[in-house]
Amino acid sequence: MSTVTIPETALAAVITTIKEDLQIQKVKVVQPSDLAPGECLVKVEYAGCCHSDVHVRDNDWGVGKVVAIGANTTGSPVKIGDRVGMKWCANACLKCEMCRTGFEPCCSVARRDSHGCGVDGTFAEYTRCWVDYVTLIPEGLDSASVTPILCAGITVYKGLKRSNAKPGQWIAITGAGGGLGHLAVQYAVAMGLRVIAIDTGAPKQELCKKLGAEKWVDFLESKDLVREVQVAADGLGPHAALIAVGQEQVLSQAVMYLRDAGTLVTVGMPGATNGNLNVPVSIIITKCITIVGSATGNRQDMLEALNFVAQGKVACHYEVRDLKEVNDVMKEMTSGNIKGRIVLRIPS
Amino acid sequence: MSTVTIPETALAAVITTIKEDLQIQKVKVVQPSDLAPGECLVKVEYAGCCHSDVHVRDNDWGVGKVVAIGANTTGSPVKIGDRVGMKWCANACLKCEMCRTGFEPCCSVARRDSHGCGVDGTFAEYTRCWVDYVTLIPEGLDSASVTPILCAGITVYKGLKRSNAKPGQWIAITGAGGGLGHLAVQYAVAMGLRVIAIDTGAPKQELCKKLGAEKWVDFLESKDLVREVQVAADGLGPHAALIAVGQEQVLSQAVMYLRDAGTLVTVGMPGATNGNLNVPVSIIITKCITIVGSATGNRQDMLEALNFVAQGKVACHYEVRDLKEVNDVMKEMTSGNIKGRIVLRIPS
Amino acid sequence: MSTVTIPETALAAVITTIKEDLQIQKVKVVQPSDLAPGECLVKVEYAGCCHSDVHVRDNDWGVGKVVAIGANTTGSPVKIGDRVGMKWCANACLKCEMCRTGFEPCCSVARRDSHGCGVDGTFAEYTRCWVDYVTLIPEGLDSASVTPILCAGITVYKGLKRSNAKPGQWIAITGAGGGLGHLAVQYAVAMGLRVIAIDTGAPKQELCKKLGAEKWVDFLESKDLVREVQVAADGLGPHAALIAVGQEQVLSQAVMYLRDAGTLVTVGMPGATNGNLNVPVSIIITKCITIVGSATGNRQDMLEALNFVAQGKVACHYEVRDLKEVNDVMKEMTSGNIKGRIVLRIPS
Amino acid sequence: MSTVTIPETALAAVITTIKEDLQIQKVKVVQPSDLAPGECLVKVEYAGCCHSDVHVRDNDWGVGKVVAIGANTTGSPVKIGDRVGMKWCANACLKCEMCRTGFEPCCSVARRDSHGCGVDGTFAEYTRCWVDYVTLIPEGLDSASVTPILCAGITVYKGLKRSNAKPGQWIAITGAGGGLGHLAVQYAVAMGLRVIAIDTGAPKQELCKKLGAEKWVDFLESKDLVREVQVAADGLGPHAALIAVGQEQVLSQAVMYLRDAGTLVTVGMPGATNGNLNVPVSIIITKCITIVGSATGNRQDMLEALNFVAQGKVACHYEVRDLKEVNDVMKEMTSGNIKGRIVLRIPS
Repeated sequence: MSTVTIPETALAAVITTIKEDLQIQKVKVVQPSDLAPGECLVKVEYAGCCHSDVHVRDNDWGVGKVVAIGANTTGSPVKIGDRVGMKWCANACLKCEMCRTGFEPCCSVARRDSHGCGVDGTFAEYTRCWVDYVTLIPEGLDSASVTPILCAGITVYKGLKRSNAKPGQWIAITGAGGGLGHLAVQYAVAMGLRVIAIDTGAPKQELCKKLGAEKWVDFLESKDLVREVQVAADGLGPHAALIAVGQEQVLSQAVMYLRDAGTLVTVGMPGATNGNLNVPVSIIITKCITIVGSATGNRQDMLEALNFVAQGKVACHYEVRDLKEVNDVMKEMTSGNIKGRIVLRIPS
Repeated sequence: MSTVTIPETALAAVITTIKEDLQIQKVKVVQPSDLAPGECLVKVEYAGCCHSDVHVRDNDWGVGKVVAIGANTTGSPVKIGDRVGMKWCANACLKCEMCRTGFEPCCSVARRDSHGCGVDGTFAEYTRCWVDYVTLIPEGLDSASVTPILCAGITVYKGLKRSNAKPGQWIAITGAGGGLGHLAVQYAVAMGLRVIAIDTGAPKQELCKKLGAEKWVDFLESKDLVREVQVAADGLGPHAALIAVGQEQVLSQAVMYLRDAGTLVTVGMPGATNGNLNVPVSIIITKCITIVGSATGNRQDMLEALNFVAQGKVACHYEVRDLKEVNDVMKEMTSGNIKGRIVLRIPS
Repeated sequence: MSTVTIPETALAAVITTIKEDLQIQKVKVVQPSDLAPGECLVKVEYAGCCHSDVHVRDNDWGVGKVVAIGANTTGSPVKIGDRVGMKWCANACLKCEMCRTGFEPCCSVARRDSHGCGVDGTFAEYTRCWVDYVTLIPEGLDSASVTPILCAGITVYKGLKRSNAKPGQWIAITGAGGGLGHLAVQYAVAMGLRVIAIDTGAPKQELCKKLGAEKWVDFLESKDLVREVQVAADGLGPHAALIAVGQEQVLSQAVMYLRDAGTLVTVGMPGATNGNLNVPVSIIITKCITIVGSATGNRQDMLEALNFVAQGKVACHYEVRDLKEVNDVMKEMTSGNIKGRIVLRIPS
Repeated sequence: MSTVTIPETALAAVITTIKEDLQIQKVKVVQPSDLAPGECLVKVEYAGCCHSDVHVRDNDWGVGKVVAIGANTTGSPVKIGDRVGMKWCANACLKCEMCRTGFEPCCSVARRDSHGCGVDGTFAEYTRCWVDYVTLIPEGLDSASVTPILCAGITVYKGLKRSNAKPGQWIAITGAGGGLGHLAVQYAVAMGLRVIAIDTGAPKQELCKKLGAEKWVDFLESKDLVREVQVAADGLGPHAALIAVGQEQVLSQAVMYLRDAGTLVTVGMPGATNGNLNVPVSIIITKCITIVGSATGNRQDMLEALNFVAQGKVACHYEVRDLKEVNDVMKEMTSGNIKGRIVLRIPS
């Protein structure tokens, strides 16, 4: 067991005033002696950013190394020095009905203990975690490159699983060229699905095609998006749709273009306005449609999602920036000028 | 093979002017020589009525006897003299992707050939059917009593199947004391589910309890319906909800009271107004909710639904009236004064 | 938190010589200070016995009260004074792939830490357990009556779940009048299945019918068991079979009488001899049969199994005997003279 | 509708003496006027051969053109001139419980009406078929190349579906370099599975690797096959195994190397001897193993299997020979000297 010196204070980006810039400050570091059994301290190397952060700011995930484990911790699956990932849900009780049945993100502990919300965020040099809920990162994977998988990756992968689409079936992916979407295209292809990518602009079209999408529909240029998506899938529409954006109109369109008996999965959190699913009951009944709301996944989903990366079947397009650029990054995300994902390097 | 004389004309209740009363008239009867291969002629004994009829009038189902089969029909599963049921979908091709995968009501033929819409209705002495798609009624079942199973019964039974609720789990049934609902309560209990009946008034409460519902919530008297339904199911809410009415507010409430990871199935067709599913995307994502639109079922569902009746586990509460009372019945249905279902006796 | 005095020694029935009688002796009691974090000490009230015990003797389960919890245990779902159940698997890591995907009994920790094998048995006044893996017994349930549910009950309930049989379908249960079987009949009925009970003798026939079995086949009196079971289920055979005994011939017969596309679940551990599944490959291919091996269930299964008891839908037929009679009980079990289950009262 | 002249007699390879060579003879051709409604006559272009034929000889499938349809056939999904495939099951009633629930090959009609057994084989210029059960071949696919998909392809594809293996999971395929196996490897890869190919010899190894298998185990060279297969799959064994050969030992090994809670699917018909599944019950219970017998698939499976070919994801390695070589081909198959599949060209 290696000895690591934990400093008294370290840098962190924190919210001091709501809707204002994050401030990078020296903050007190949890000391090993402060850790309860089952807790550990992680020295963060990379932190992820996603659109949800624009709303919840320092609520985040990342990758780092375990530097301390609480005294009297038993049965820990990780040890000091291990490289671990932190998910959006920092913890789950593993005992309640939701945990027992695989819906860990619905655990009340998971809801309370999300990084950056109830507990320490990852825009910091050190963060407190739980040994039973961090994710051991497989060897051979680059820390920066797996960071987005811990949130965007698992989210779209779980959504694809819940779509119940089978190999050989068509799935439409909206926002296919974006941060969530470009990962979804790759996971879908790796799962044997046939992808109709929906987004706009030549660069995104090129990216989606390169990643394996068979069809492309540009939502700005299309004169009849519903019909065009149906034509792309045997004239009957796709068997499933994964919605990575949170707009009402996008959901309504999906219900219309889906094949009968098809499934719509929504993983894209809407902003404050325009955030309803609003569709005619008569349509979903006569078409026998299923609509699934899907949050992030559980521990098993996380490892499966990483495994596709380890096999080389999924790779996130990302850019590394420094923690001190966090406010610029946030502004760029809000303006929609980001390609792929941003990963923040935490200075050591 | 018995010989049956088919008259040239017979009585039928027909729409002559939209939104006006049905007229009982002599109409021409399809003659055996007019039947194409695969078609048969059924002498109707009982016809069902449901709320959808108020909109689509002579669009109906029923029970009767096969009196003729088209020449050159091969492999017919029914023969002259057999007692058969007519479902809302009069026919399905049994060959398209929807039929091959068990979604016969989504077959384009099924949509076109529904009794009373594209093809002959059952408010008539004789009606043309398809030998491969009528339902052989098991012996020992009373014709009038099984008539409502051919539409209301199969609809709620299929909805319960698609809810994916497992024996021992809680399901909320809205409109539990009504025509669809009181059947749903019985099917749910027979499937091992625990029922929270939602409706209003002491007679319906008594009925639901008698049929096996464990909990009762009166939506008119309840001050906090969402909370009350959750408390009824371990404080966490039911695992599933079957919505037998078509109102927006009822659907929204169900999304709120459902247990996390729960499933809402809607089978109740809304009227012209107020017919949207309108719920916050953020709720269905964070609760990992599934919403299922379910129309009527397929041939296998139909036989299963009848089997529960044959076993004595499900019995429809119904009243028999004469065909000539059809317009009164329609008015009573519109006014909501009907208990259970109405079955019309077709004069012979 | 109550104070409990833990004695230095207490009674336990232990194996001293293989294949010889158990000896009731004073043994050292684990003291609270010896407990690791996550462990607890349970004062046993009732211990169960099953046929497997005849082979593994003090390998057992039971019900008792938590009297101590290891220092530095965090997040314990039980507290001192709680009444808890001990399953055959005393522990599981809750972290490995098997645990993450709901197959806790396949966890390597579960295999090692089964009561009576790797860890303390329950034929003792005090036994060491794990706070995260004991089962909180719902209030209102009698301790003796739930003891058999912790092994026999969960085993057959899980087997029925894995049979994938749906409400309204037929299931054959072999050994239906025995310890496992009479519970299986009740669970099957509560799950909406139609039961064909297979066993022998008028008392068992009467019991099975009383518990809800619709059909009875006496394997000793039947001249053609395969045909008789098929006739009992529409002439086509049952959709599923639950085999609660471990004999080769019984399994072969089940493959023959099962309906095409049916499922056979085996939960009955064979003795040393005659313990193979030995069936023609051509039969299982042409009939599209599924064969499932099912051990005990996980924590969720356990609570579901207890819930059916709490609802009054399942009740074990059992007899309470004293711990000192343990060797007599073992002999009676070997001779097959036991009706239902035996529960041993542990003296306090 | 084109006019086609149907000759009075045409060539066919027929069995005249059991276990003797097939004789190519002039046989009477069914005339259009002999066809019942629902039947059609197909002019065969290519016929397939598989190992089962060695036992059942002219029991076969193929591809050809519809040249006549029975008078009074209604609703035919094919017309004269269409190119259609004939499956091992020549017909199914589409009405019984098995057909209604997707198990068409278990239909009693399907069992009776298999090409070459109950009905005309495809080792003939003309063969009688059923319009509702022939398979319309998608345009752009070569007739010879799709012929093996109609039996070997659908068989392994259906087996993979029933294995319930999910994208990213490991599957072992035995006989991976053979006729069934090399198709199974391709389907598995297209379905997102990770393949451990089990077979023998460098050419088969090379083939399997080229087709996408990640791991290779040579069953002749391996000193501990069970261990080697487990090591290939994370040290835990594969989640599923598809057994394309019919030997007892191969099945026993698979049960041993499977991961806990894994699924074994057997599609390989054994010869007369050594054809049992013979495994210890205690193993399948403690490992929670599922064993699935899988015959060929239904109409939907057939189209899905062809779709993977149409997408270029699956291609059969085959050799075209002439009908007159049929007896040589049979001998070569018996001796195991065939690579991939043989397709017989039927002379016109």
